[in-house]
Amino acid sequence: MPIAWSANKHIHTRQFNITILDEISNRLCSSEPTSLTGYLKHRAVAALIEAGHEVVVSDLYAMKWKAVADVDDFLSRADSVGKFSYQAESRTAFTSGTQAPEVAEEQRKLLWADAVILQFPIWWYSMPAILKGWIDRIYAYGFAYGVGPQGGLNWGKRFGEGVLEGRRAMVTMTVGGRMSHYGPRGVNGAIDDILWPIHHGALFYAGMQVVPPTVFYEAGRADAVAVEQMAETYIRNLLNISVTSPIPFRAQNGGDYDDVQVLKENLNPGVTGHALHRREPAYISNTWFGQAGDYTRRHIAPDSRYDEK
Amino acid sequence: MPIAWSANKHIHTRQFNITILDEISNRLCSSEPTSLTGYLKHRAVAALIEAGHEVVVSDLYAMKWKAVADVDDFLSRADSVGKFSYQAESRTAFTSGTQAPEVAEEQRKLLWADAVILQFPIWWYSMPAILKGWIDRIYAYGFAYGVGPQGGLNWGKRFGEGVLEGRRAMVTMTVGGRMSHYGPRGVNGAIDDILWPIHHGALFYAGMQVVPPTVFYEAGRADAVAVEQMAETYIRNLLNISVTSPIPFRAQNGGDYDDVQVLKENLNPGVTGHALHRREPAYISNTWFGQAGDYTRRHIAPDSRYDEK
Repeated sequence: MPIAWSANKHIHTRQFNITILDEISNRLCSSEPTSLTGYLKHRAVAALIEAGHEVVVSDLYAMKWKAVADVDDFLSRADSVGKFSYQAESRTAFTSGTQAPEVAEEQRKLLWADAVILQFPIWWYSMPAILKGWIDRIYAYGFAYGVGPQGGLNWGKRFGEGVLEGRRAMVTMTVGGRMSHYGPRGVNGAIDDILWPIHHGALFYAGMQVVPPTVFYEAGRADAVAVEQMAETYIRNLLNISVTSPIPFRAQNGGDYDDVQVLKENLNPGVTGHALHRREPAYISNTWFGQAGDYTRRHIAPDSRYDEK
Repeated sequence: MPIAWSANKHIHTRQFNITILDEISNRLCSSEPTSLTGYLKHRAVAALIEAGHEVVVSDLYAMKWKAVADVDDFLSRADSVGKFSYQAESRTAFTSGTQAPEVAEEQRKLLWADAVILQFPIWWYSMPAILKGWIDRIYAYGFAYGVGPQGGLNWGKRFGEGVLEGRRAMVTMTVGGRMSHYGPRGVNGAIDDILWPIHHGALFYAGMQVVPPTVFYEAGRADAVAVEQMAETYIRNLLNISVTSPIPFRAQNGGDYDDVQVLKENLNPGVTGHALHRREPAYISNTWFGQAGDYTRRHIAPDSRYDEK
């Protein structure tokens, strides 16, 4: 176990019940966990505990997590007269301790954790709604935004700073499509650019350092051997999370942006897209079983397309 | 009204109950609609009807839309023996007519529409969970994916082709932040790149042509005059939707991609990011009240930052 972990043995593994998604479960698992992602989580958690980490798992489907942000997220209405404002209620409820209990509990898990893992199958190039609803609800005003000095030229603590500063985060994602489709020039868009709203807009926003994602492509087609490769890769990436170089996103308050938060002209001139906001524009985290990807190598032969017939 | 509309006067306006979000409602609206977005929708729908269009609105919050995709989305289990697979059940339920009634109804609305508007406040650089859950649930196998010849070098009808081909789509989004933060070099990432998963991954994926979004920045700070500008802009954009040039996304089956769906080397060489997949890499739809944006023009003076104090 990396030395860096010796003083803090917590990893907060987030995933949700993937039995709603994976077909591979029928072929691989005769008992719980009953899905590929569930199986990977099971293997990962076992390995982390064996390595001496403490792990908390929030299985959003098993928890029947309420995905929709609404007035029921607050035990009392701060502004009982005016029209309902989720942001205003969030600010008051977080400060006064009148948030819904499950919201406060998830916030406690994040504060407790040294590393936060978001594990999910990609749905429509984003998080499934239940996980998006977890972000929407627990990212309260004062917890994930509205932190630090605001006003004038102060834009608050966000993008590299914030309540969750000092923690690491990683996305672990199962993808049905091929790596080539998610490569730098793939039809779906580059996986790093697709993950931008999650990596930069949610995890880095709240202060966490985001390590490259663990992405498993063609997950629905993986055989038992491939699944073991996935599990070993996932475990290796988790055990190395404290010593893995984070995606080099530029900190909002690090001097790279001007007073209206526009990247200074002398930085990455001519670069387009989200790569602008990385200190190494050429950085690509797109992976195949954790290895650097050759996005055109895995040409799928027609006779292997049974899964899409 | 543009000639192009004479033969088809349907516009399907989607939005959801924004009363959960907007504070401006307290200042602007003494009665329903009780929020900025609700007010903009109200104005837009009235103008569309006056212009002779037929409009259907799905107010997801008012509908208490179920955001989480699960086994309850299917009236019967196709595979009652094996482990549950949402994709497999979706495929069978769509074909056999055993989808949840509300799912089938939303699909009918999309098939009926000539233009689909997704109206929402940006939450964490994406759709609120309730709208993501609308996509997750109604984008069934056979309806939004798994359409057309699959297998071998056939990757199906998607990205410019599909069941919703011939329809237009537009995102209307209220944003609390400043336009400069969402500009080509803004700290949040360029709005066009942030919207990629929705524009390209959901709307264009299912075959719709996506026109530039109507984005209202600093929405929480807008005064009555600004809100009227917003309404007029929104109405103008809606009435022009049939004659507005769509975002020039490259069609998957248009010859620009190779047999593993990688953009051919001679196209946009050296371009990085999602702009690769537009026939005009320089294209930027980022707007301020519908006008071409100068992303550093609106420098916010300290004394105007009251809303973030």
